[in-house]
Parts: sequence; C-alpha cells; structure tokens
Amino acid sequence: MTAAAAKGGEDAGGLSEGVLGGLVGYRLRRAQLKVFEDFLASFAPLGLKPAQFSALVLIEANPGRSQREIAAALGIQRPNFVAMMDEFERRGLARRHRSQTDRRSHALALTEAGEALLRQGRVIVAAHEARIAAGLSEVERAELLRLLIRLGTPAAD
Amino acid sequence: MTAAAAKGGEDAGGLSEGVLGGLVGYRLRRAQLKVFEDFLASFAPLGLKPAQFSALVLIEANPGRSQREIAAALGIQRPNFVAMMDEFERRGLARRHRSQTDRRSHALALTEAGEALLRQGRVIVAAHEARIAAGLSEVERAELLRLLIRLGTPAAD
Repeated sequence: MTAAAAKGGEDAGGLSEGVLGGLVGYRLRRAQLKVFEDFLASFAPLGLKPAQFSALVLIEANPGRSQREIAAALGIQRPNFVAMMDEFERRGLARRHRSQTDRRSHALALTEAGEALLRQGRVIVAAHEARIAAGLSEVERAELLRLLIRLGTPAAD
Repeated sequence: MTAAAAKGGEDAGGLSEGVLGGLVGYRLRRAQLKVFEDFLASFAPLGLKPAQFSALVLIEANPGRSQREIAAALGIQRPNFVAMMDEFERRGLARRHRSQTDRRSHALALTEAGEALLRQGRVIVAAHEARIAAGLSEVERAELLRLLIRLGTPAAD
C-alpha cells in the first residue's frame, strides 16, 4: 500500500479507484485478500486453511457439541462442514462419536494428533496476527476488532 | 450478532470461540462473509459479482489503461481477469481495443450498455453500503476505512 493509496482515490498502481476507495465492502475485500495470502503461506506447512484452523479451535473449545452446532457457529454450510470433518478423520485429527444426549447427532472431538497440530497452529496464528496488524497500535487493533464485530449489526441492536 | 458475541468469547450460538474471538483475521473473514451475502443478493438482478462491479468501476475511471494494469490494481490474477473481460465482451458491457501507445497491449473501455449497468450498480452499492454500516456512526465508518487500509501495511510505512 502506497502513501497515495492510504489517502484514498489512487491505488498502488497509480490508477484511480473511482467510487471504490470509499466503500467499506471494497476495503474489507482487499484487506481480506492480503490477510488470506499471509495466512495460507503461514499455515501451508501444517496443511490447514483458515476455515479448517477455525474448526479445530471450535471443536476443542466446545467438547461434545454437534456437527450442526459447530458448522452454524462457523457460518459454514452443513455439507461443506461434513466434508471437512471427513478430511479431519482421514488425517486422524478429529473424530465423530454418537452424542450421549441425542443418539441421532454426532458429537465432535480432537484426537491427540489434532490437539498437537492445534498447539502448533496457535503459535503460527500469533505470529501471523502480529504481522498483519504490524501497522496498528494496540488501541487501533482493539478498535478494528470492535468495528468489525459491529459491521453488519442492525443499528437498533 | 448477539450482545454476547459483541462482548467476545461467545458467538451467536452460545458456543465458545476460544482464541478466534480476538483474531483480526477471523473477525475480518466473518465480516466479509456477511457483507458478501448482502452484496450478492443486492447485485443478483444486475448479474454482477463484487469483483465484476469493481472491474467495471476501474475500467470507467481509468480510460485507456491496459488489462494488465486493471488486473493488477484489482489484485486479480491475469488469467481470471482475461476470463472476466471475455464475459464482459459477450454481454456487451466492455471491449478491448489495441492500445495507441503500445500496440502489443489491450486498452479497455465500457460500452454504453456497460456505462448504463454501472450507473444502476452505483445506486445499488450505495444502498448496500448504508445497510452494512448501519450499526456505525459516520466517524466510526471513516475510522474503519482508515484501519482497513492500514491493515497489512508494514509498521514503518
């Protein structure tokens, strides 16, 4: 990002951004692309994509919760989450077992290998977060988190 | 987003978010998914995806610029942008012509139909932006734009 880009109106290539520069949606998408790039490169050695890392975190943090609940919490479509769990099982990272409270649903848990991979992931994600927020102060980082949570929240909420 | 989610630690489903809640990358992805959903629904009548809308804006705002330059400014891979331009030509929205300064490259321009679609798109995007930022004050919206631009920028910049 150049100084011109930071002022808005022009991007890194010196082209005019027209109406895009002032759009939250556009800025969000560009920031997202940049952050994804760093995440994918950082997590390539572990073979984890962002949604997979998030899923491992939620499975560990919510023992005994069902596939349906974890998928909903992640905002992932059910069939896509089932495919992700299939891959976790193939790789020996997580497993499904019959829920004790509802025999028709599957409760999820990490295996020891899954726990170990997640520990490595936590170290990597901390370094990744430090890199992407390197241009922000601690106060700015907290403000960004707050504003991102508010985004999409109805005004009356 | 519930009040519990806004406080962090718990998501809308009452599950623990573990380490995710405090990660800029995760919050960015969740906000992005929400914004994309509204964008796709808003632009479905025009048959435009976010990247296509951005491309039409940049082509109009930068007359005579090459495919290479527009693709780079959008952060879109060259082959993907060529495919997008193929579709724009098929739909009669934009065209490629030989650059007057460099006969080996293509300069891009919108057709009248492309200009007309973009005018409709600008009205729709304004309503979309108002919806997604409905929970933010004008000051907060400006601050969010500034922080998103700074994201991923080296600290020394």
